[in-house]
Amino acid sequence: MNLGFLPNPDPAQKHGWLERARKLTPKLRHRTLRPVCEVRMVADPASFQGWRVEPCAEAEAAPARVIEPGGAVVVDFGQHLVGRLRLRAGTDQGVAGAPLRLRFLFGEVPAEIAEANGPLEAGQCLSWNWRQEETVTLDVLPAELRLSRRYAFRYVKIEVVDRSPYARGARLSEIRCATENAVPLQLPPSPTGLPPDLQQIDAVSLRTLRDCMQTVFEDGPKRDRRLWLGDLRLQALASAGTYNQLPLVERCLCLFAGLARDDGTVMACLYEKPAPVAGADFILDYAMLFAPTLMDYLDAGGDLGLAREFWPLALRQLHRPLTCVDEHGRFQVDATCWNFIDWHDSLDRQVSMHGVLLYCLARTVALGERLGCRAELAGLHACRDRLTTAARAAFLDPADGLLRSGPARQVSWASHAWGALGGILTTAEAAAAFRRLPAVPEALRPAGPYLYHYVLEAMFGCGLDAEAVALLRYYWGGMVRDGADTFWEVYDPAQPKLSPYNNYLINSYCHAWSCTPAYFFRRYAKAFA
Amino acid sequence: MNLGFLPNPDPAQKHGWLERARKLTPKLRHRTLRPVCEVRMVADPASFQGWRVEPCAEAEAAPARVIEPGGAVVVDFGQHLVGRLRLRAGTDQGVAGAPLRLRFLFGEVPAEIAEANGPLEAGQCLSWNWRQEETVTLDVLPAELRLSRRYAFRYVKIEVVDRSPYARGARLSEIRCATENAVPLQLPPSPTGLPPDLQQIDAVSLRTLRDCMQTVFEDGPKRDRRLWLGDLRLQALASAGTYNQLPLVERCLCLFAGLARDDGTVMACLYEKPAPVAGADFILDYAMLFAPTLMDYLDAGGDLGLAREFWPLALRQLHRPLTCVDEHGRFQVDATCWNFIDWHDSLDRQVSMHGVLLYCLARTVALGERLGCRAELAGLHACRDRLTTAARAAFLDPADGLLRSGPARQVSWASHAWGALGGILTTAEAAAAFRRLPAVPEALRPAGPYLYHYVLEAMFGCGLDAEAVALLRYYWGGMVRDGADTFWEVYDPAQPKLSPYNNYLINSYCHAWSCTPAYFFRRYAKAFA
Repeated sequence: MNLGFLPNPDPAQKHGWLERARKLTPKLRHRTLRPVCEVRMVADPASFQGWRVEPCAEAEAAPARVIEPGGAVVVDFGQHLVGRLRLRAGTDQGVAGAPLRLRFLFGEVPAEIAEANGPLEAGQCLSWNWRQEETVTLDVLPAELRLSRRYAFRYVKIEVVDRSPYARGARLSEIRCATENAVPLQLPPSPTGLPPDLQQIDAVSLRTLRDCMQTVFEDGPKRDRRLWLGDLRLQALASAGTYNQLPLVERCLCLFAGLARDDGTVMACLYEKPAPVAGADFILDYAMLFAPTLMDYLDAGGDLGLAREFWPLALRQLHRPLTCVDEHGRFQVDATCWNFIDWHDSLDRQVSMHGVLLYCLARTVALGERLGCRAELAGLHACRDRLTTAARAAFLDPADGLLRSGPARQVSWASHAWGALGGILTTAEAAAAFRRLPAVPEALRPAGPYLYHYVLEAMFGCGLDAEAVALLRYYWGGMVRDGADTFWEVYDPAQPKLSPYNNYLINSYCHAWSCTPAYFFRRYAKAFA
Repeated sequence: MNLGFLPNPDPAQKHGWLERARKLTPKLRHRTLRPVCEVRMVADPASFQGWRVEPCAEAEAAPARVIEPGGAVVVDFGQHLVGRLRLRAGTDQGVAGAPLRLRFLFGEVPAEIAEANGPLEAGQCLSWNWRQEETVTLDVLPAELRLSRRYAFRYVKIEVVDRSPYARGARLSEIRCATENAVPLQLPPSPTGLPPDLQQIDAVSLRTLRDCMQTVFEDGPKRDRRLWLGDLRLQALASAGTYNQLPLVERCLCLFAGLARDDGTVMACLYEKPAPVAGADFILDYAMLFAPTLMDYLDAGGDLGLAREFWPLALRQLHRPLTCVDEHGRFQVDATCWNFIDWHDSLDRQVSMHGVLLYCLARTVALGERLGCRAELAGLHACRDRLTTAARAAFLDPADGLLRSGPARQVSWASHAWGALGGILTTAEAAAAFRRLPAVPEALRPAGPYLYHYVLEAMFGCGLDAEAVALLRYYWGGMVRDGADTFWEVYDPAQPKLSPYNNYLINSYCHAWSCTPAYFFRRYAKAFA
């Protein structure tokens, strides 16, 4: 394809964006909360991941909990929070006698607390250090202990490892969480007229977004605590009309642009500390979404001048995916990099990646028109037409109107979500396909919330409002019925212990990319009324 | 006994002493040291506690040590130190990727490092928390980590529990110890003419004292890190003529006096933090030693006015032990409190406690005379005569000139040490008894350094200089031959794993009460020349 790409940003320009990002760093807000009760985790096959939470005492009914070595207390803060823990510790003896050693375990979900010594599964591909635990030794008592690390949790287990045998019990009191968020703890109101069950989903959705909003839009405040481009797009959509944190969106865009490689590549994630630096991951579909994210930013009232500065970079993200298009105009999956789409091992990504490319081409064209950068658009238009025609010829099965992906001609929801969003299918074709899909047993269903979002977007896009609402109720409502306080990184109602890391205890249970019900309730308000 | 005790100190007076103590708090001195080499602990039945230290690399030969998860490095600082550890940690990846978790284990002796997961013995009567370990999780890398707690150690094992699987090894560099002592790190010189082996004992002795000198004379900087009256006396003796920390002695005396109970009892130990408070332990022989410690303080040039303020309290410490004297003038062990003498389960303490009482009566008389407080002395004189006569009649066996203690007529070194120091035996009788004791198989030998000190003092006191020197070479020299870097709380050459706490890993291996060779070398210089 012969597109007129523009020069990549120079170091001075990137430095300027990083400086702009620095100035946009939000001041975090803090509130001091106390636990609402003491609980215990009870094994229960009928509950999510096999654990039920049972209140066992009002928190702080006594001035202090006296805990013997090996004993523990589990407190419930009543909602998912992000913040730092403090407490007062003492002994009946008055002084320490010997150091007091406490072990803390923080849990977003009951299993993280109940399975205190949970197994390290074979093949676990992320560090066990993501488990939120801490062992602290206090030499001087009484003491006010402030844990220095930030945690994401609703439940905290505090265990007395050991203390002086002369101290007759460790006394713990005034357990508090000093919250940390870029926005107030109070959730924004739900749209008027939203039914109660959806109001509940909205609250969980808003709480998820709130707890991911730190000095960047983090993907998950427990794990990975960093900014991912794919998550950012969904968070920015959900923020508009709820928390309205446009300056935080702007900061994140400046960070991605400021950390672009010399060849113009926008990386998939970045770290803020000790100094902003891009992660090593490159995700082809995430990079393409830079332009749509920028367009969303403008739609939410963003700075046209800044978007114009980013235009060459937005355009540049199409360069590599276009090199993946073969001589017949069909996207061929780039095995040298990460084509994400969904956490699904056996998903064939050809059609969905082709659809992402088409969707992003269209959004890039719209962005260029909005910015008045028309010089580069002619090539994009032609390219889009060619890729659409090629896709229909190659992927669309005239027999049943379904898209088929790869050599095995795989049918999947992913192909149809992106096929619809990218315009491979007409609105009517997409609607027909989505109506037919549930009855196609071999059709690969979405594995996680990120893809569910785009499925819903596609369904609303082709007028399947009722079906989209039902799907939202089924999927996000399922998490709520399973006890979700914030929405999860991974959810399959049939596999409560599913984990892309082979260990569900290090899944993130407050994860940015599943916060979009709040967006749908507002964007498609009429469908939910 | 009808002694004229004086009124106990009032609260205002005690407050004044605590205030004086506060003002005498020494400013701690710091130096930053680097390890001298990397070592490994090698199982070796011929070495102390079964472990030999083997150097395996020069420290900092490389700019950083790269350690894989589960791997560790052990560094040797070349000498026992008290202080805080810091290091730089990073990854090959540049950023953290996932939190890095490090586990630190500090050891005064090799076994503490080698037996990383050493067993919790049944009947262990002190907390396992005394084991010097720490687990730290670092969210941001590279980082400079400063451990907040103070440790006593020569060896540090740093283990990488886990790190991001993408980080390709944790990089540790610039491992440093910032020392903390009330005195400079450099040891005072040994007396001129001291033979090389005794110079070595002197250095270990001085290092022991140095590392126990913090804001009080601690008993052990690893454990218990507090001020004990019995240890204070020996530390003050060793400090005079070496570090000359008389203000620190004065501070400690003020703390004990200021924390005396309303009934005038001086407790056995005290804590400095969060505010000075007496420990719950009362040791009858330690309390009696308050007057001798005060007398030593004056001998070292202490404040006569302060000693005069303490006089009623010094006198008062004789009250309770005198109530233990029966109608025949014999001390009967007070089962309601701790009669220490030595860590020895089967030691009969009647004669030794009787001897301690007599020794302290004599020192109290000497103190009273020095202070010009003669009004109270007549009763003490009479009491001393009566107790001496009664002891000789009851305990001294005319057949062999040995003292026999309790209903089982037990023979022990403890009885003879305190029998000699208390004047139950004449100098000639004591000398004869000490010459005979080694050939008496049933004679209970001392179990620990505290009693060895008083045995030596008694032997020097009755002119057995050569025997005393030989005993010092045997006992303290034995620790040096066994690799001691500082002298130990517990030592029996025949039982390297002896522990009064049923776990030798929590013994203190830098312990105040074994620091007195430095005192003997100077007090009885001629004997060592």
